[in-house]
Formats: sequence, structure tokens, C-alpha cells
Amino acid sequence: MSKDISTRAENYSKWYNDIVTKANLADNSAVRGCMVIKPYGYAIWEKMQQALDKMFKDTGHVNAYFPLFIPKSFLSKEAAHVEGFAKECAVVTHYRLKNDENGKGVIVDPDAKLEEELIVRPTSETIIWNTYREWIQSYRDLPLLINQWANVVRWEMRTRLFLRTAEFLWQEGHTAHATAEEAVEETEKMLEVYAHFAETFMAIPVIKGRKTANERFAGAVDTYCIEAMMQDGKALQAGTSHFLGQNFAKAFDVKFTGKDGKQDFVWATSWGVSTRLMGALIMTHSDDQGLVLPPKLAPFQVVIVPIYRSDEEFQKVCDAGKSIKQELEKAGISVKLDDRDTHKPGFKFNEHELRGVPVRIAIGPRDLENGTVEIARRDTLEKEILHIQDLPTKIAHLLEQIQQNLYTRALTKREEQPLAFKQW
Amino acid sequence: MSKDISTRAENYSKWYNDIVTKANLADNSAVRGCMVIKPYGYAIWEKMQQALDKMFKDTGHVNAYFPLFIPKSFLSKEAAHVEGFAKECAVVTHYRLKNDENGKGVIVDPDAKLEEELIVRPTSETIIWNTYREWIQSYRDLPLLINQWANVVRWEMRTRLFLRTAEFLWQEGHTAHATAEEAVEETEKMLEVYAHFAETFMAIPVIKGRKTANERFAGAVDTYCIEAMMQDGKALQAGTSHFLGQNFAKAFDVKFTGKDGKQDFVWATSWGVSTRLMGALIMTHSDDQGLVLPPKLAPFQVVIVPIYRSDEEFQKVCDAGKSIKQELEKAGISVKLDDRDTHKPGFKFNEHELRGVPVRIAIGPRDLENGTVEIARRDTLEKEILHIQDLPTKIAHLLEQIQQNLYTRALTKREEQPLAFKQW
Repeated sequence: MSKDISTRAENYSKWYNDIVTKANLADNSAVRGCMVIKPYGYAIWEKMQQALDKMFKDTGHVNAYFPLFIPKSFLSKEAAHVEGFAKECAVVTHYRLKNDENGKGVIVDPDAKLEEELIVRPTSETIIWNTYREWIQSYRDLPLLINQWANVVRWEMRTRLFLRTAEFLWQEGHTAHATAEEAVEETEKMLEVYAHFAETFMAIPVIKGRKTANERFAGAVDTYCIEAMMQDGKALQAGTSHFLGQNFAKAFDVKFTGKDGKQDFVWATSWGVSTRLMGALIMTHSDDQGLVLPPKLAPFQVVIVPIYRSDEEFQKVCDAGKSIKQELEKAGISVKLDDRDTHKPGFKFNEHELRGVPVRIAIGPRDLENGTVEIARRDTLEKEILHIQDLPTKIAHLLEQIQQNLYTRALTKREEQPLAFKQW
Repeated sequence: MSKDISTRAENYSKWYNDIVTKANLADNSAVRGCMVIKPYGYAIWEKMQQALDKMFKDTGHVNAYFPLFIPKSFLSKEAAHVEGFAKECAVVTHYRLKNDENGKGVIVDPDAKLEEELIVRPTSETIIWNTYREWIQSYRDLPLLINQWANVVRWEMRTRLFLRTAEFLWQEGHTAHATAEEAVEETEKMLEVYAHFAETFMAIPVIKGRKTANERFAGAVDTYCIEAMMQDGKALQAGTSHFLGQNFAKAFDVKFTGKDGKQDFVWATSWGVSTRLMGALIMTHSDDQGLVLPPKLAPFQVVIVPIYRSDEEFQKVCDAGKSIKQELEKAGISVKLDDRDTHKPGFKFNEHELRGVPVRIAIGPRDLENGTVEIARRDTLEKEILHIQDLPTKIAHLLEQIQQNLYTRALTKREEQPLAFKQW
């Protein structure tokens, strides 16, 4: 019943890949560098999205959607920006295929060449600031606080699931302001939002910092970031927030008329986090048994596994499982009852441990007689016997404890572990 | 204070475009055929997504994410499929730009040509069925019920905001089954889900139908659809659900071992709705004054407009507005208090009418004295005076009435209006 995961000590990088693939989070696809995010991995990403989206809206932002394609000439308009992204652009050059002459497949139709090539967005500053020119005339139109959930493409040569992929999912905030001060304030505010999200939902302690000139986002005046330390002592950049000055406003001629009637270029910020957060989450908490998930981001927080020897017993413990599930759900806890009769309890224990379910409840015929169940927490692997009637209260409390413990444990590790002075 | 919208009688098609752009739903972008979905339009799309996503999950589906790019050779594997999509493919041929020789911009780097061209997904059957080959071995892995929220690209020559754009947002369900019967059942079930969504949330009566062989999805055995009738008598296809037989399983060699130990190809369905639904929503309910939104999809259901002559009055009515907002929100109603002091009440009335807010509350100093407000419903433009303390109950009821009335009105129109026998 081995899970066939490398240990961290053996090979940290292989351990990471094993967890991503064996816990059913993501897989490499047939397209070089692009991943398939599997349902279980996507469910975690959805939880992240929901929490972040609420935080963005609570701070006054609204969502919108801008085109996937960016005309090549747009990229060139901001010198540092094009310098930063030119080497990793997926370029659309044609808009049609046709049958090849021997009818064996399709070829690119040479008559369907685009007049201007289109870049699959690596980030959207240029197309967005080209649009903002139409949307912003006066100080009344400011601030403009917009976010976009989208896919982006950066043609990376060396990829790694979630951490660095040719296509990834992300959100990108793009805001426009009347003054430099306001824009800087927004940049800092969104960094705080990211830090708060990382610590509260992901249970990851982060360090807020400022990038050196070399590491800045291409086109930014100043780049702030949150970094987390992984278990191998390497740092991982988890989110960035940029003060863009008037660079993009100047490149795209976006001016506004102030209260004083004078015209000036608009000040900008942009900020983003991506599916890379999944990598940070996995690397921070997981162990040699598999994934470990903080309860706030787990697709289900509790799994109930029936223990039985006969069909009759199976029916009985499943019925008890259903009623426990209902009681827990009433307390706002998300629960899966694993009532598959195609797999043995031992297999299920292993699988749910591998997939990082925060709390496991095992329930067998003897438990039913005693009115108890065995619970196991994933973070410490400790077991405990609890009375069924106490479950809603005790498990709600346990989930809070686990969330807190994961954070504290990560913080302690960070403080104790020697820094590798390298980055993921 | 004219809104500058064409009337339906004058020019139906221009009327539609005017509403989309002037109600701030979407705009054409700098990229041919691609639209920018503006915050107000996107907020409606988000409401649609939430409702649909819940319906998909309630029927046992989970979300996942597959690559944006499809290798050219994949498209060719299913003969009808490539025939249907080859003529509208955006093709990525290169992965890098470089500075041009006179340093004036960037050009596509001829040394960075892809060995095999990548198609920006027009739909994802091929990449998904290529993945399902790895995921499906036995009947235990079936059914596989997966949905994806994504952007897709079909290079259309004649585009129209929301209704037909080169890039659009959509969801695509891709399910795998052990028997033809199960797959057909799924196809029909999802058509029912779409019909239910259209009628219950969008307040659009739809006709469920089956496409002729010519109109079938490229690669399908059978295509079901829901169609709605627009105010000009033309039909609009609003959602499709396809029974794909074993076509994609055969093309990608996806077999499973049955309970009887025999191998067979897997049966498939796919089904999708897109931002095209926004077009249907707009065209079904709106009038010559602008957009009309069903309460269940309105970003805010009620707008409160303060009426005042002095700063002091402004303060007073705004305070009353805030407390009304709170009371309505307690009753689960979404409310915007339009407390901008930069625009006159008349301007605001006009704007919110144009944007289709279901209920408007106007509140002035005299109302305050009487403990009343004036409410106006967007669907009928009727006004009424209500006591402030009755608002939560009466407005909740009114919103239900509006939702119902929009549906009934659309149904009556459909029954009375001569069919144009044309399609949008």
C-alpha cells in the first residue's frame, strides 16, 4: 500500500512533483509546458479565487475582461515592458488552416496571414491602458479599480507544474489614479491583501519586500512582493504588486483633466497572483505522506470512511456516516462520505492522507455500539476517539486548530531553518 | 438628456449595439473581433456563471482546466471536427520576438518557429479526449463528469458584440460514459439544465430542439439546442448539448474495461453556453429606453437616488437612503445608493434606466416628511408611492413580480409575433 512518493530528504524536487501528480492536482499535458489542472487541484484553486475575489471587491474593485490577444505593436510602446516579455511570447501569425494537398491532414493556410501578428497575453498592461485612454477623461473617472481573472502565456523553457508553466491562470489588477500618492497607497494596500490572504487562508507566513531594480516587473517604477520560505530553505515569490508610475499612461497617452482644469498623465498600479500559489501551498505544508491542506482551502474538510466486514455492516455504518455528515454540514463543515464499495478502507485511508484531507473519521460496527468514532488529523497524524454527539463542536474547533497549527509550524520552520539563498 | 439610442423600429441591429455600448456592457477592442467586457457587463456574466456553476455541481459535475493550445495534429484526428473548425483557427507559429535591426520595435524571431503549430482552442474536445485516455481504464472511472470555464477563439469574419466574437468566454462540459444510453441521458439532462437556467434566471422562454445533420456540431452524432425568439422575430441559439457517440474515443483511442472484462470505446457528450447568452438577455427584454434586466441577474436590483436642493438636504436624504439600503439588504436585496454629488438626479434616473436596474427608489425631503418614497419599476416604467417601513417586503415581492412579468411578456411576444425564419 505504498504511495510511491519520494521523501523530501531524498529528492525535494521529485517529492514535489510526486505530490502534485499523485494527489491528483495537476498533470503535464500533450502541449509542451502547459498543464492540466485536475478536478481536485482546481477545487482548491476555486477556493482561493473565491476568497481573493471577495477581498478585492471588499476593497472597492470590480472585475472586467480584456482580449486574450495583444497586437505586437502595443508591446513595443513601453520600452522596458517589451524588453522583459519579448523572449517568451506565443505569437499568432495566421487565422486559418486548410487541407493539405494529399488530403492527409491540415496545414496553415499561407493566404491567411495576419497583417499584424498577435501576442497571446503574457500580462495585460498594454491592451488595458490602450482601453483606459477611452475610459478616462477627467478626475471624475478616477480612481479606476479593475481586476481580471484570466489565463496568460509566457513561453518558459524549463517548466514545473504550478510553479512555472507556459500557460497559467491568474488575476491581474490594473488601477488608474489621479496622483502618485494614491497609486503608491493602492500598491501597498494590495500587497497587504495578498499577505493577509496568504497568512489567513493558506496558513503561509510571508515576508513583504521590495524588489531590486533588476528584479522589477518590466515597466514598473517599483515592485513589492510577498515571499514565503519553502521547506528546503528556498524562497518562493507568491505575489507581486507594482507601482507603474506614469509609464503606461505615457506610452498610451492616457491623460485626465484635474479639478484645477489642468491635464496630466494618469498614475497606475498592477498586481497579481497566480496558480503558482498552488505550488507554495503544496511545498509549505506537505510531508512525506502526501499533501497537507489548510482547512480553509480544502475541497472537503472531513472525510468519513466506513469500516465493515459484511454488506449488512456496510449498510449500517454508511447510514450512520450519512447522519454524521448531515450534522457536520449543519455546522458549516464540508464533508465527503467515501461510500465506494469498490475500495477497501485501508486504500481509502491512504488515498485521503495523500490528498491532504484535514480530518478523517473512521466508523465501524463496534464504534456504533459505543456511540463513538475514531478521528485522525492530517497535520499531526494524531488519532483520537470522540463521541458522535460531540462531533460538530469538536470538529469545528479541531479545524480551527489545524489551520492555526499549520501557520505556526511553517513560521517555526522558517525561523529555525537555514536560508538556502535561492529561489523557486 | 437624450440617451441617443436608436429605436427598435428604426434599426433593430443598431438599437442592440447602442444598448451594449451605452449601458456599459461591452466595447469593441483594438483587436479585430475581440471585445472588452466592461465591469457592468461582466457583473451580469458573473451572476450567470454562479447560477450555472451551482446547477452543474448539483448535477454531479466538477470543474477542471485544460490547455489553451491544441496541437494542430489533434484537430485532424476527428475528420468532421477539423472540417468544422479549420477555417476559423488562430494559429501560434512562433514563441519569441526579437528586436528588429534598426531598433525601432520588435519582429517575430524566425529562429523561434514551433515544430508543430498550436491552435488557440476553438473548443476542447480533442485536447480533453487525449487526456481522458490516461484517466480512463475501467468502468470504475466512469462516468467522468467534467466542466471547464474558459475563453475560446473562433476567427469570425463578421462579428457582433456578445453574439459573435473572435474570442468569447464560455463553459464546456465534457463527459465520458460506459454506455450510449447514459451519454444520451446526460446530453438531454444538460439541455434541461440550460432550459431551466434560461427560463428561471434569464426570464427567457426557450424551445428545445434537435439540429439537422447540417447544423450539428462538428464531430457530434446528435446536437440538441435551446433557441429563444428575439423581439425582431429572429431565433437565437442560446446553448447546445451534443451526443458525441464514440467519435472522439475512437479518434483518441479511449477504451475502458467493462464489468464483464470486455474492452469498448467510451461514449461522450459535450455541452456549452457562452457570453452569447448576454446577447440573448439584452435582445429579449430591453426596450427603446435601454437595457432591462431580470432581478435575478441584475448586478444591483435596486438603486436609490437622492433628490435635493441644498447640501443640507443632500445629507439628510443620503442618510435616509443609507438606512433604507441596510433594511433592504437584510431582506437579501442588492442595493446601490447613488450618492454622487457630481451628477443631477435627472441624469441618474436616465442612466439607471439605460442600465436596466429593476427598481428605482427616489427619495426627497418631502418624502422624508411623509415617511414615503417613490418607486419606479424598470419593466413597465410604472411609478408608485410606498411607505418606508413597507419597503423590504414590498420590494422583495415586486422583484419577484418583475422576474415573472419579464418571462410572461417574452412568452406572449413569442406567441404573437410572426417568425422571421432567420437566425441571429
